[in-house]
Amino acid sequence: MTPPPEPSKPHLDLRLDLERRSRLGMVEAIWGEHKSAAQIAAALEGLHQAGQVGLVTRVVHSKAEAVLTGLEARGHDPTTWCYHPDGRCICSAPLPQSDPERAAVAIVAGGSSDLGVASEASLALACHGIASDLVLDVGVAGLHRLLGKLDCLRRAPLLIACAGMEGALPTVLAGLLPQPVIGVPVSVGYGVSAGGQAALQGMLASCAPGLTVVNIDNGYGAAMAALRILGTSAMGLSGADPGS
Amino acid sequence: MTPPPEPSKPHLDLRLDLERRSRLGMVEAIWGEHKSAAQIAAALEGLHQAGQVGLVTRVVHSKAEAVLTGLEARGHDPTTWCYHPDGRCICSAPLPQSDPERAAVAIVAGGSSDLGVASEASLALACHGIASDLVLDVGVAGLHRLLGKLDCLRRAPLLIACAGMEGALPTVLAGLLPQPVIGVPVSVGYGVSAGGQAALQGMLASCAPGLTVVNIDNGYGAAMAALRILGTSAMGLSGADPGS
Amino acid sequence: MTPPPEPSKPHLDLRLDLERRSRLGMVEAIWGEHKSAAQIAAALEGLHQAGQVGLVTRVVHSKAEAVLTGLEARGHDPTTWCYHPDGRCICSAPLPQSDPERAAVAIVAGGSSDLGVASEASLALACHGIASDLVLDVGVAGLHRLLGKLDCLRRAPLLIACAGMEGALPTVLAGLLPQPVIGVPVSVGYGVSAGGQAALQGMLASCAPGLTVVNIDNGYGAAMAALRILGTSAMGLSGADPGS
Amino acid sequence: MTPPPEPSKPHLDLRLDLERRSRLGMVEAIWGEHKSAAQIAAALEGLHQAGQVGLVTRVVHSKAEAVLTGLEARGHDPTTWCYHPDGRCICSAPLPQSDPERAAVAIVAGGSSDLGVASEASLALACHGIASDLVLDVGVAGLHRLLGKLDCLRRAPLLIACAGMEGALPTVLAGLLPQPVIGVPVSVGYGVSAGGQAALQGMLASCAPGLTVVNIDNGYGAAMAALRILGTSAMGLSGADPGS
Amino acid sequence: MTPPPEPSKPHLDLRLDLERRSRLGMVEAIWGEHKSAAQIAAALEGLHQAGQVGLVTRVVHSKAEAVLTGLEARGHDPTTWCYHPDGRCICSAPLPQSDPERAAVAIVAGGSSDLGVASEASLALACHGIASDLVLDVGVAGLHRLLGKLDCLRRAPLLIACAGMEGALPTVLAGLLPQPVIGVPVSVGYGVSAGGQAALQGMLASCAPGLTVVNIDNGYGAAMAALRILGTSAMGLSGADPGS
Amino acid sequence: MTPPPEPSKPHLDLRLDLERRSRLGMVEAIWGEHKSAAQIAAALEGLHQAGQVGLVTRVVHSKAEAVLTGLEARGHDPTTWCYHPDGRCICSAPLPQSDPERAAVAIVAGGSSDLGVASEASLALACHGIASDLVLDVGVAGLHRLLGKLDCLRRAPLLIACAGMEGALPTVLAGLLPQPVIGVPVSVGYGVSAGGQAALQGMLASCAPGLTVVNIDNGYGAAMAALRILGTSAMGLSGADPGS
Amino acid sequence: MTPPPEPSKPHLDLRLDLERRSRLGMVEAIWGEHKSAAQIAAALEGLHQAGQVGLVTRVVHSKAEAVLTGLEARGHDPTTWCYHPDGRCICSAPLPQSDPERAAVAIVAGGSSDLGVASEASLALACHGIASDLVLDVGVAGLHRLLGKLDCLRRAPLLIACAGMEGALPTVLAGLLPQPVIGVPVSVGYGVSAGGQAALQGMLASCAPGLTVVNIDNGYGAAMAALRILGTSAMGLSGADPGS
Amino acid sequence: MTPPPEPSKPHLDLRLDLERRSRLGMVEAIWGEHKSAAQIAAALEGLHQAGQVGLVTRVVHSKAEAVLTGLEARGHDPTTWCYHPDGRCICSAPLPQSDPERAAVAIVAGGSSDLGVASEASLALACHGIASDLVLDVGVAGLHRLLGKLDCLRRAPLLIACAGMEGALPTVLAGLLPQPVIGVPVSVGYGVSAGGQAALQGMLASCAPGLTVVNIDNGYGAAMAALRILGTSAMGLSGADPGS
Repeated sequence: MTPPPEPSKPHLDLRLDLERRSRLGMVEAIWGEHKSAAQIAAALEGLHQAGQVGLVTRVVHSKAEAVLTGLEARGHDPTTWCYHPDGRCICSAPLPQSDPERAAVAIVAGGSSDLGVASEASLALACHGIASDLVLDVGVAGLHRLLGKLDCLRRAPLLIACAGMEGALPTVLAGLLPQPVIGVPVSVGYGVSAGGQAALQGMLASCAPGLTVVNIDNGYGAAMAALRILGTSAMGLSGADPGS
Repeated sequence: MTPPPEPSKPHLDLRLDLERRSRLGMVEAIWGEHKSAAQIAAALEGLHQAGQVGLVTRVVHSKAEAVLTGLEARGHDPTTWCYHPDGRCICSAPLPQSDPERAAVAIVAGGSSDLGVASEASLALACHGIASDLVLDVGVAGLHRLLGKLDCLRRAPLLIACAGMEGALPTVLAGLLPQPVIGVPVSVGYGVSAGGQAALQGMLASCAPGLTVVNIDNGYGAAMAALRILGTSAMGLSGADPGS
Repeated sequence: MTPPPEPSKPHLDLRLDLERRSRLGMVEAIWGEHKSAAQIAAALEGLHQAGQVGLVTRVVHSKAEAVLTGLEARGHDPTTWCYHPDGRCICSAPLPQSDPERAAVAIVAGGSSDLGVASEASLALACHGIASDLVLDVGVAGLHRLLGKLDCLRRAPLLIACAGMEGALPTVLAGLLPQPVIGVPVSVGYGVSAGGQAALQGMLASCAPGLTVVNIDNGYGAAMAALRILGTSAMGLSGADPGS
Repeated sequence: MTPPPEPSKPHLDLRLDLERRSRLGMVEAIWGEHKSAAQIAAALEGLHQAGQVGLVTRVVHSKAEAVLTGLEARGHDPTTWCYHPDGRCICSAPLPQSDPERAAVAIVAGGSSDLGVASEASLALACHGIASDLVLDVGVAGLHRLLGKLDCLRRAPLLIACAGMEGALPTVLAGLLPQPVIGVPVSVGYGVSAGGQAALQGMLASCAPGLTVVNIDNGYGAAMAALRILGTSAMGLSGADPGS
Repeated sequence: MTPPPEPSKPHLDLRLDLERRSRLGMVEAIWGEHKSAAQIAAALEGLHQAGQVGLVTRVVHSKAEAVLTGLEARGHDPTTWCYHPDGRCICSAPLPQSDPERAAVAIVAGGSSDLGVASEASLALACHGIASDLVLDVGVAGLHRLLGKLDCLRRAPLLIACAGMEGALPTVLAGLLPQPVIGVPVSVGYGVSAGGQAALQGMLASCAPGLTVVNIDNGYGAAMAALRILGTSAMGLSGADPGS
Repeated sequence: MTPPPEPSKPHLDLRLDLERRSRLGMVEAIWGEHKSAAQIAAALEGLHQAGQVGLVTRVVHSKAEAVLTGLEARGHDPTTWCYHPDGRCICSAPLPQSDPERAAVAIVAGGSSDLGVASEASLALACHGIASDLVLDVGVAGLHRLLGKLDCLRRAPLLIACAGMEGALPTVLAGLLPQPVIGVPVSVGYGVSAGGQAALQGMLASCAPGLTVVNIDNGYGAAMAALRILGTSAMGLSGADPGS
Repeated sequence: MTPPPEPSKPHLDLRLDLERRSRLGMVEAIWGEHKSAAQIAAALEGLHQAGQVGLVTRVVHSKAEAVLTGLEARGHDPTTWCYHPDGRCICSAPLPQSDPERAAVAIVAGGSSDLGVASEASLALACHGIASDLVLDVGVAGLHRLLGKLDCLRRAPLLIACAGMEGALPTVLAGLLPQPVIGVPVSVGYGVSAGGQAALQGMLASCAPGLTVVNIDNGYGAAMAALRILGTSAMGLSGADPGS
Repeated sequence: MTPPPEPSKPHLDLRLDLERRSRLGMVEAIWGEHKSAAQIAAALEGLHQAGQVGLVTRVVHSKAEAVLTGLEARGHDPTTWCYHPDGRCICSAPLPQSDPERAAVAIVAGGSSDLGVASEASLALACHGIASDLVLDVGVAGLHRLLGKLDCLRRAPLLIACAGMEGALPTVLAGLLPQPVIGVPVSVGYGVSAGGQAALQGMLASCAPGLTVVNIDNGYGAAMAALRILGTSAMGLSGADPGS
């Protein structure tokens, strides 16, 4: 009997924007959600060969294992990359040193369900040599927790505020502190808050002046906005280079 | 020349639910927005003849003048009713005395643009003999204003919290105080907050436990919910009767 | 051969708001939907050690088994908690005694598909020592079933009305009875009623005065609103303490 | 000085579907909302010359006066048409006699704000020789008013139920009575019920079996659906002919 | 070792509305989507004991097998019910005889993906002794297929028209034929037509006069609307009784 | 008394994209809706001085009169431009000759309310020397009108199909004819069809293969898409030059 | 023991529109998403017997294997069809030769996640003998990649532009090039871009004149629109016939 | 005859947040849209007496005249404030000097219809001593206009990008330049772009990393975000004081 008919081969190609680093001061991040383990492994290999930091977002645990095992099977040192389960990212390892003299970006979140988005932002900053402090569980339903952290938050050059449900945290923060505040709506909730729409609307509609917003769950985008604000584009990223 | 053809007469009839008072402990309120001055005058006349408090909501200034002038032209004492421009209501005058021993309901609002909705709630309570305190301009973008009022708010039996924009005020209140909090989204804003949808979503999605919500701009509804909570249905409303 | 690269450890931390009880008279409830069995077990252990009632909502059957088995493996008495499949909650066991002198809250639902949300509300009340009566299958498409229960419902201090589809049940109830009525839209349905949006809109748009609403499926929130109304915050919750 | 440049003439043409009567048993109705008085007058003249009943919907009072005055100026007998302000329609006059032996269609409405839509349905039926009874102010917030009318409604061959706000009236009716019930959402309300969307969703999501729905405010459409159900297409419409 | 802690038992109760038959002339249908096999089996048993036709909608194949096997295990004759995979319904078997003298309802559908909804409507009619003809694949993108069926469709007392995508089929039908046309939007499609919303909007917005609409995928509802129109409520349903 | 304080002058500047003609083969059209008569007059003067055809869309009658009177006051020959009230456009006069050998684009519309959008498309084509035929009142609710025009439509190189309400006309056309069909949703309707959303969704969801769509009311955009298809960009537009 | 009750057989029928080829110059494509492997195999067999090209869209890998294995089991030569995993289509094999003299349609896409939709368009064109060039990864966030391809794109007779996220690619293209541009929104993204809605809105709202749009992910529809534009309907499709 | 009954007085009170300046480094701006001329005049008087810059946004021309005339009537020097019609703001006059050494913020807009929002941003910056350059008419449909301005834009410390329609301008900018880019959706458009929703979605969904967004038409908010980024809060605002 003849074998069953063979489907044709899938297309595995991925053109990396390696110029983004010189143009915008940012590494090319790979959005991993709709890519196969093979595609992600190929992208990490390409970035590694170009001497650039690798950052892949939205990778679930099982896919990350397949990526890392696959890279080892192709002869790479298994310690070249590391999977960070809280932020669901694969990053080059070790992450670049951040400047101990610089104040760290504050990443604030209302509840423990916002941890994933906050961690993605933290990792994306770390890939560019920027330190950050995570301040979790300071939701506005228990305001004392946030007010107790105000002095510490006042020292950060800017704040990234992640919140699901009604998304009021960035509004309260931007009313209390003068720094840039970047709101990140989080897709945690149910009913009207399912998918993060209520949080997004709330942040855009905010009565606090000068709050800016990124897409729902876009921790990476908030980090890149922070990078633009911190003016690190001119600093070069040599410290962040895993190939050196 | 013959006169132009005469259109037929409009239908002026309005069946009042005069039993609502005995069934639910509430007076029948007239929603004035889509009614003519003639229809409203007829309704006020009917309620007056039945010895009930008259309350007409959503009446603009010019229509109110037409209603009151019309009632006077039909032989009524012009001091029987009064127009309240902040809440856009016509009420029987004088409003019933409220019990000085009872703590007043607190009606809290984020900004001066919420005054109309807050006033409607206050007038609807007043028509049932319930006193209220208006606490305006305590928006969460300047949290110190709200925190400075907390002790005073703690003494109210319940809170009605009106807010437009992102609508975070009831969430913050319900996280700080244990009383019933009724959120009223207000249709003030622009862009995503136009029409009050962002405020409504934010109140429903609230991370503060036990916050309840009514329709956008529904100050009257919030007052009736307060009335149900205060259990005044059993008290009768004789003090509220402008006809006695 | 070297072992495959090890991803880093996930973050298991959960900061409990143990002050909520003194501030608002409510126990801290854990929203279980997006948490792992290990996170939930840790939270229950923490609440137990603090002498507080444990309440975890939105837990599917298999996850509940993992939580309870895990707690036993860590040396806890297996009868300390119980899983309630109808309401998908894990609660401390036994639930606190409710005062037999007090009338029970009535929890009314249109159909048997609303059972989950109604049960969540009932359990959340029970954790605070409040009794409740479930009155199911009184949907407005067969009005005789509801009318036959009116006398019984009239004796409850307040009503929680759960409904999916078009969500008309709370409107009909609030037109017939003078007590506070809290509407809970339920995400049961298909087409335009999928996700509970039609029921939510219907309750907010209700022509019955003084109906208040909580988020879709938010049985816990309705119970907390009831708790605020019943003024139990001042009573303390010692009777509800499973650790005593 | 030369006169200002003259814009070109507007296009006044309107092709009437005069075959609709033989094909579907319905007269061609003119949707007047976006048409000028001149266009409407031309359409009425055309229908009159073809010996068909004229029916123009969505005409405000001032435009109706302009239409009727204009027709008189063109030599028509001013009693050939009549404006009905409640339903905002111009109809041929007199309306055809309806058969006194036939039970009238019941048109039920929740509040006096639904009068316009209910009247449009009633007039559209009348133009086809079908009698109807208007039963207003039977909203579900005061159920006793509806229950008191049940015996009378049971005798109608079918029911048209108009409701704004949450739109629960058709659901309650269809649960109580076995006839066809056509729900017409009405665009009366504010907040979530503005524009009639909440009423529309509620009727489509209804838990009552066999309720059908037409577009918001579509009183004419409900009447045509009733006409299809009553099978009057075969009866001819000679009695309805104002030209005979 | 002690056994793992036992969760409490789920609530299996289902109150059937057995009066629906005498009140509305319809059997009580069970919406199977959110019910367990055990709950459905209990409901079918209850209806069988009451001598009523059983009809369960929205049952996937595997659940149906579990229901039927379970009923046999409880001692029932396995030929008492039958699963119909196209309409995803379990019905009493055999279905009642329909009157061969009566013209059958025409159920028309645009494509083969609408088969499920069309079959649900057909089965629901059959349970009440009403015959129907399925006319599939007459979508408006190939109009010749529909025009070729017009003479046959003209003989049906009413038409149920099921369509997904843009949902234009009922509009075209209602423009060509004078009978009642009930539009059923179908949740087949992608992009803007995903979930059936585009079809629903299209049917409600239809330019064809007198088209009525039911909820998306509501084949059962369309059948019940047909039943109301056919006036079968007065006829009794003895022929439909599987218990006799 | 001093005169009241003088507000500063508004900004009147308008940078024209005069290169659009050589780049894309299209004249720069001015969207007149949000511009003042003075701004529009300045733009027409600028285009005239550059020897280009002037086309201003979305101009109401009174504003057009102000524009034309203003241009005459500035010394221009009043016959240089003409206002077209059906399409609400001001165009250079006379419009360029179209090639009598070429078949005209067919612009098809369902009802007379679509005339404005159809005329805008026709005028935009005429400004580029393309003839068009308007075929109005061929809505799908009376299919015979459309079928009677098929042979004529078959000769057009492409079809622009304008429809409001449910927007089914382009779907039916694209199922019958093989040419390019460009659907233009029209914002005529009420309830779910208000604003043209139902028509837009219906055209995008169409079951007819190869139908393309432009924004609601975008007659100009449909004409430009037709221009791209007809490949007239290479033809030059000298015949269209009002300055020659 | 008797066997478990047998459910009835599913309905497997599929009426093919084999006239589409002569009427519109297009082969009948099978939308595979909601069909079983057995239904798809039957459709391919039917098209093959009628001598027409077979094209089935939206088939996942495992279902395609079942289809092809099933066709071989029914005696067909396994090389008659081929599965293309990038575009998720099964097509007749070999695909028809395209005319080497004709310029190929350019299919442009912003990122590698748009590959599936772009490939579906390419395959649908290939089934009709039209060649195409895929130009991937030219997203507007790195404009140099697109600008570097302009000369090559200028030679294509028309462009199909696929984009997810904000969907700006077709706008930029249509501002630079004079050919027809068909925008295809792609359902790749998260938050506000989930499901392709943001891309769809952006393409419809485009400031570039003459851009047309098809439904989200509708690569097949874009190809059919291209086919209409290229006027291939008159050319016959004999070269495309796998049966010859 | 007695005079008609006198309605009660409206509430004119406005509590200014004069601490905002020291807390956040921003002046308190008055949102003028829903306030009367009398309320605005009172607010400007209050700010003037407190020695703070006055800024009132969203004031139409006629209301501004009433405000300024009213202030003069109350004895104020008419040159203390000035109305800016492009940005629809009343500001203290003269505006504070900006530092000539500092690079100006670039405010970029796609079309002349975005002028109002861009001007509001420019004035709000000017009130805080920040200079800005307006770069209008650089929409992405004619990309050469934007590319020609790149060198100039590269020198700005940050960019505010205003766009209606599809809102692609900020995406293209953020892909080309490394500075912070704040996107402001503008409510100019029709159909799907009416109200600015398409532009808002497009900016949030942007494929360019690190773009942040504010509410539709929120030029003031974008300016305040710029102020936070520029760190001017520490600089004091003495130069901006109109009272000195």
